[in-house]
Amino acid sequence: MTDLDFLFNPRSIAVLGASSKPGKIGYEVLKSIIDAGYEQKIYPINIKGEEILGMKSYRSILDVQDDMDLAVFALPAKYAPKAMDECGQKGVSGVVIISGGFKELNGEGAELERRTMETAKRYGIRVIGPNCVGILGLDAKFDTFFQPNYAMSRPKKGNISVLTQSGTFGLSLLECFAMEGLGVSKFVSYGNKADVDELDMLRYLENDEDTKIIVLYVEGLPYGREFTELAKNIGKKKPIVMLKAGRTKSGAAAAKSHTGSLAGNDAVFIGAMRQSGVILVDDIDEVVDVVKILSMQPLPSGNKVAMVTNGVGPCVVATDEIEYAKNLKLSELDKETVVKLKEHLPDFCVFSNPLDLTGSATAEWFGYSIEILKQDENVNTIMPFFVFQDGPLSQSMKELHDFMNKFNDEKKPMVCVATGGEFTKKQAARLQKNGIPCLFTPKRAVQALDKVVLYANFLRQRANLSPST
Amino acid sequence: MTDLDFLFNPRSIAVLGASSKPGKIGYEVLKSIIDAGYEQKIYPINIKGEEILGMKSYRSILDVQDDMDLAVFALPAKYAPKAMDECGQKGVSGVVIISGGFKELNGEGAELERRTMETAKRYGIRVIGPNCVGILGLDAKFDTFFQPNYAMSRPKKGNISVLTQSGTFGLSLLECFAMEGLGVSKFVSYGNKADVDELDMLRYLENDEDTKIIVLYVEGLPYGREFTELAKNIGKKKPIVMLKAGRTKSGAAAAKSHTGSLAGNDAVFIGAMRQSGVILVDDIDEVVDVVKILSMQPLPSGNKVAMVTNGVGPCVVATDEIEYAKNLKLSELDKETVVKLKEHLPDFCVFSNPLDLTGSATAEWFGYSIEILKQDENVNTIMPFFVFQDGPLSQSMKELHDFMNKFNDEKKPMVCVATGGEFTKKQAARLQKNGIPCLFTPKRAVQALDKVVLYANFLRQRANLSPST
Repeated sequence: MTDLDFLFNPRSIAVLGASSKPGKIGYEVLKSIIDAGYEQKIYPINIKGEEILGMKSYRSILDVQDDMDLAVFALPAKYAPKAMDECGQKGVSGVVIISGGFKELNGEGAELERRTMETAKRYGIRVIGPNCVGILGLDAKFDTFFQPNYAMSRPKKGNISVLTQSGTFGLSLLECFAMEGLGVSKFVSYGNKADVDELDMLRYLENDEDTKIIVLYVEGLPYGREFTELAKNIGKKKPIVMLKAGRTKSGAAAAKSHTGSLAGNDAVFIGAMRQSGVILVDDIDEVVDVVKILSMQPLPSGNKVAMVTNGVGPCVVATDEIEYAKNLKLSELDKETVVKLKEHLPDFCVFSNPLDLTGSATAEWFGYSIEILKQDENVNTIMPFFVFQDGPLSQSMKELHDFMNKFNDEKKPMVCVATGGEFTKKQAARLQKNGIPCLFTPKRAVQALDKVVLYANFLRQRANLSPST
Repeated sequence: MTDLDFLFNPRSIAVLGASSKPGKIGYEVLKSIIDAGYEQKIYPINIKGEEILGMKSYRSILDVQDDMDLAVFALPAKYAPKAMDECGQKGVSGVVIISGGFKELNGEGAELERRTMETAKRYGIRVIGPNCVGILGLDAKFDTFFQPNYAMSRPKKGNISVLTQSGTFGLSLLECFAMEGLGVSKFVSYGNKADVDELDMLRYLENDEDTKIIVLYVEGLPYGREFTELAKNIGKKKPIVMLKAGRTKSGAAAAKSHTGSLAGNDAVFIGAMRQSGVILVDDIDEVVDVVKILSMQPLPSGNKVAMVTNGVGPCVVATDEIEYAKNLKLSELDKETVVKLKEHLPDFCVFSNPLDLTGSATAEWFGYSIEILKQDENVNTIMPFFVFQDGPLSQSMKELHDFMNKFNDEKKPMVCVATGGEFTKKQAARLQKNGIPCLFTPKRAVQALDKVVLYANFLRQRANLSPST
C-alpha cells in the first residue's frame, strides 16, 4: 500500500512560480488554494519576491523557515530541475507539477522531465504530473487548479474519488458532479504520470474509507496484468468506473502527443477489465449517469426492471433499450401485483410494464404503484418515468417527494427518469438531494442501469466463487 | 398536398370541457391558449356554463354565435361522439382531441373512437389525436398543452417543426429546444392518429416555407412504402430527424398499449429510412444535438474533421469516436497549414490533429487557428473543443466570441464542444445565440456530426443521380 496522505492532507503548501498577475497559472493556482478555504500555511515562492494576493512571497523555497509538506510547481519546465533540487534540500514530501512542456513534447521536454524526476527520486520526493491540473482534497479544503472559481464550480465533499490523466476531462467531470449535487472525496489529475501513477493511487484508494466509488480516466496503460489484478481486488470492495481513451489507432496517437502514453493492446485490455468488474464507459455523461446510480442506491439483486409513468412515450424508447441491453429484462409483473394495482387505480390506466398511469396521475397514484412494485419479487429495479410538466402531477410535488422518500430504502433500487426544462431539473435535483437518482433521458438511464447490473452480477459471481472472502 | 393551415392559424378556438379548476385538463388547456398570447377569439365550453378564468363560458358550442375554426376536446371520452356531432353542426374545420380513453384501451374505448371518427368524417372535420397534447403554433401564438407554463417552458419561434406520436416525448423535446435557444415553427402531437397522420403532416410541412427541419417521433408505421417515398422527396429539400420507438418486440408491445400502433417489420423499415436520407436517432438528446448542428451551420462538404483545443483529453475521446464513426475521418492537415500555424503559435503547442494549443491558449490563438483551418481543403468541419474554465481563455471571452462570429460563415461548418458548469453553459449559450452550435460532450458531438455528414452524403448522391432536380 502506498501512503499518499500528505498529498491530500498537507500541513503546508508552497507554490513555486506564484505570480501577482491574474490569468497567470502561478496566480490562479495560489488563488484556488486560498479560495478553497485551506486552513494551513501557504507560501508563495516568486523569484522577484513581490507581494502576491496580499501575502509575502519568498525568492526560494529554501528561504522559508517552516517545514514543507507539499510544493506545487507553476513555473516553466526549464526551471523544474533546479526547483526540484531545492525542494529536496528543503525536505518536501510531495511535488505537484502543473506545468507542461515535458515528455509530451519529446526532445528537450523529455530530457527536462528525466532530469527533474531523477532529482525527485534521489530525494525520495513523490511527484504528481507534470502536465496536469493537480489535486482537489475536500478534507484539507484545497485544490491546485488554475481554473478560477468564477469559471469552474467545485463539487461538495462526498465519497467519489477521481483519478484522471486528462485535467480537462477531470475538471469537466467535477463540474458535472457539482451540478448534479454529487460529492467528491479526492481528485488527482496526474498528466504525464512521471512518478505517482494509477497503481499507486488505486492502492491508496483501495483502503481509503472515505472513498466508496472510484472514477478513472486513462489514456494508455503499459502494465496490464498488475493493473487487472489490482482492479479485480478493488472491484470486490468498491466499484471502479473507467473511461479508457485512446482505444483506436488514431486515438492512441492523440493520447501519445497528449500525455506521452502508449496505448497497448486494447481488445485484450478491455476484455480483462470486464472480467475484473471494472465498469467501462465511453463519455463524460456516462460516467455521471453510472456514478449517480451507484452512489445513491443499493445494487439491484437481479436484471428485471419495472417502469411506471404518467406519460409512456419515453418508456417505449426505454423498452427498446432494455431489449438491446445485455444485462436487463422487462419484469413480468406478478398476477397479485396487477390485482392490487387495479384495486386502487382508475380503469383507464394501462396495467402492464411499463405501467401507464396516464397524464391524469397524481403523486398518490405513483406512491401507491411504487409501494406495490416494491413488493413484487419479479421486480429488481423500479424506474419511475416522471412527466413533471403534467398538471395533476406538477400540483402534487410535495406529496410526490414525500412518497419517494418513504419508499427510498436499501431493499430495491429506484432509478428515475425525467426530461425537461427548469421545473423538471428542479424536481430532479430535489430527488437527488434525497438520495434518489434522476436521469435525463430514457436511453442514457437504461444504459447506465445496464452497467450497474453488470457490476452487481460480477459481485455475485465473485461471492459464489470465493465464499470465504 | 394537405392544407392544414386552419390547425396552425385558427381564427377562433373553442375548448370543450373547459373547467374552472386548476389542475383539470380543461382548465390547463384553456389557460395555455391564453398564456401563449393567442390574439383571436377563445370560447370556453362548459356544461354548467360557469365563468372560467374571467371568461363567459357556453353550455354548448352550438350556443356560440361566431364561426369556429378549431375545437379542442378536454372532456371524458364518452362525451366525444356527441361533442363531435355538435362541432359538425357548427361547421368546425378541425378538432384536437386531447383526452385519452379511446383505442389505446381497446374494447369500449376503441368503439368510442370509431364512433367519434365516423361522425367527424361525415362532417369533413379533420381530427388531431385522440390521446395527445395537441398543437403548438408559434405564428398564431397558441398551444393546447395541459402542461402549465410554470412547469413547462415553451420554445421561441424558429424553423424546426415537430411531429410526435408521444406527447411526453414532444413536450420534453420542446423544453430541450427552449433551453438550447432553438426555435420552433409548428408542433403536432397526434397520439392515436385517428385521422391526421404523419403522411398528412409531412405533405403539409414539405411545402411549408417556415419549416427548415422536421423532427418526427413515431411508434409503428403501417404504411411503409408510401412513407418512404414521401420521406425521400422531402429529404431532398429539408432534413427529417426521426426517432422510431417500438423497434423491438417488447418496445412494439409497449407502443401498442400506448397509442394503439402496430410496429411492423423494423429492419426493413430502418433500411428504407436510411436509403431515404432520414436521419435516425435513438434518444431525445440525440435529436437536440443533431438539430443544433443542422439548424445553425452549413452542411459539411466532406467527412474530414479537424479539432483545435486548449485541453486535449476530450479530443482523445472524440478521436476514438471519429474512428468508430462510419462517415467521419480525421483530417490530415495540409503541410502549408502546419507551417502557418507554427509561424504564429508558441513552440509548446502540439501541431497535429487534434491541434493542442494547451491550457495557456488565449482567444487570439483560437481565432488564428480557426482562420488557418478554414483555408485548409483537407478540413471539412472544424471542431473547437473549448475549456472555458482555463484562466487564459476565461479572461478573453469577449475576444473569443468576436473571433467565432467573424469566422462563422456559410463556407465551412464549425461544431464546438464544451463540458462544464454554469460558466461553460453561459458561453455555450452565447455561441449558440450567434448561430454556432456547442455540444456538451465529445462522444455526443461526434455522433451527431456523423449523422449530419451522412445526410450531406445523401444529398450529394441524390444530386449526382438526378442532375435535373
